[in-house]
Amino acid sequence: MAANKVKHRSTCPIARSLDVLGDKWTLVIMRDALFFDRYTFADFEHSGEKIPTNMLANRLKKLVDLGLLKKVLYQQHPDRYRYEPTEMGTEIKPVLKSLARFGEKHLGGRIPL
Amino acid sequence: MAANKVKHRSTCPIARSLDVLGDKWTLVIMRDALFFDRYTFADFEHSGEKIPTNMLANRLKKLVDLGLLKKVLYQQHPDRYRYEPTEMGTEIKPVLKSLARFGEKHLGGRIPL
Repeated sequence: MAANKVKHRSTCPIARSLDVLGDKWTLVIMRDALFFDRYTFADFEHSGEKIPTNMLANRLKKLVDLGLLKKVLYQQHPDRYRYEPTEMGTEIKPVLKSLARFGEKHLGGRIPL
Repeated sequence: MAANKVKHRSTCPIARSLDVLGDKWTLVIMRDALFFDRYTFADFEHSGEKIPTNMLANRLKKLVDLGLLKKVLYQQHPDRYRYEPTEMGTEIKPVLKSLARFGEKHLGGRIPL
């Protein structure tokens, strides 16, 4: 569903962001797309968190519909697609960075670099 | 479950933060506690998004267990409790602010001030 068609709970911009980003997987996929140069379905599927295939398909479709990723045909016969962050998608970076700082400080996370 | 007892999916600090914060309600409650001076169960219950009572009870318990809120007895006979952000809880603010900026710019949200 396109971002401007989402039925939101309230006018609060925090609640609206959580309406579309508030689950355990959506932002993990954006992390991979924005910081780890993962592009294809297989790239995302093989990420460390082992997202289930049906969940990945669902979230990629949602992210394309929302306009955070775009689906690009990069090879024909057979057709192959990759997912690239849109300009709107890149604006998720501050959210990811703030989650990273919190997780590093309080949850024992380590940036795998 | 205390923050140091959570079973995490990976060592990535973003994934770890989403393990504990990644749903539609947890950060809405932290928003109310941190920015709108809501403290009691009734305060949170009457917030604009109309969180269901059982969901609210579950999320408040989780936030206390994680150490993001503390439960404080503020009146006796009958006993009444309020929930206050801990120091760790205040460190959620940058996450909320980045979500607010995204929601304002892309999802038509308005800060209710």
